[in-house]
Amino acid sequence: MDMKIEGLQDLFEVELKYAYDCEQKLVDKGLPEMIEAAQSPQLRTALQQHLRETHGQLSRLDQVFSATGIERDTKGNAILKEIMSAAKDSASHIDQSPLRDAALIANGNQVEHYEIALYGTLVAFANQLGLQNVVSLLEQSLKEEKEADAKLNQLAQTINVSATQQSRSARV
Amino acid sequence: MDMKIEGLQDLFEVELKYAYDCEQKLVDKGLPEMIEAAQSPQLRTALQQHLRETHGQLSRLDQVFSATGIERDTKGNAILKEIMSAAKDSASHIDQSPLRDAALIANGNQVEHYEIALYGTLVAFANQLGLQNVVSLLEQSLKEEKEADAKLNQLAQTINVSATQQSRSARV
Repeated sequence: MDMKIEGLQDLFEVELKYAYDCEQKLVDKGLPEMIEAAQSPQLRTALQQHLRETHGQLSRLDQVFSATGIERDTKGNAILKEIMSAAKDSASHIDQSPLRDAALIANGNQVEHYEIALYGTLVAFANQLGLQNVVSLLEQSLKEEKEADAKLNQLAQTINVSATQQSRSARV
Repeated sequence: MDMKIEGLQDLFEVELKYAYDCEQKLVDKGLPEMIEAAQSPQLRTALQQHLRETHGQLSRLDQVFSATGIERDTKGNAILKEIMSAAKDSASHIDQSPLRDAALIANGNQVEHYEIALYGTLVAFANQLGLQNVVSLLEQSLKEEKEADAKLNQLAQTINVSATQQSRSARV
């Protein structure tokens, strides 16, 4: 943390820049790499839909920067970097595809939960700071992240079955 | 990822060892450091209660290792390390205490959400693998992590108010 934190507004600013960095990295690399590694058409479709949503989330963050007068900037964060690197690890180390999809979903859940924590904090801080004009923007993105996580869990039900059948047949 | 992943059982094993590592690090350092840095008596009490729960979660994981015959071992994970280091950063860089508490809650939310993702995956995999004897143990810990996250959010409502009042009075 290099900036001086003297008020809740400063904390809000730091978290906002983390979120902006996070969404940018997901749009630029994180989600495209997961889409490429996914084999299940349903998982690819869900990730592609979430990529479109993530573009919308970036533009909401743009609006938050404008509305609050906070300088539009990213703040890199080792947490997201490590979560994305774990996803890359799954993609490159697991050959069989239903199993790789199962691992990608586990990685995807971690991305979503990291973002749920981020947006949850941003909503709470914005409420407390009286930034009513940005609360609903942040709440909308929080809702989308929760839905994306639930969608992954729903897909896992089918994909985990395929992953088990595959490993059984590999042992025959 | 150094082990060969050939079936869902292997993925379950990896995630289980991540969870064991995570709970151990939280018991040994993560939670005690947050408790020491927290100023609000309510936040300290909540973190102390969660430390006790975390001991219980470790012992549930011990039972999962025994029941599945998976070798009891930890698997270090850079994600948790970075989340814990962010919490340490908050504790050491923010002097004023209600504000530091607000930052610690944001860090705590990230820990809880990381664990919610981990246990969620473990429950789904255990269900699919037919490990009925361990599903309820993992579900119990998942429930506790969600409750710990909700408790932090509840405390944030009061602590964020104090953090704002403090930064206003600091400007007078």
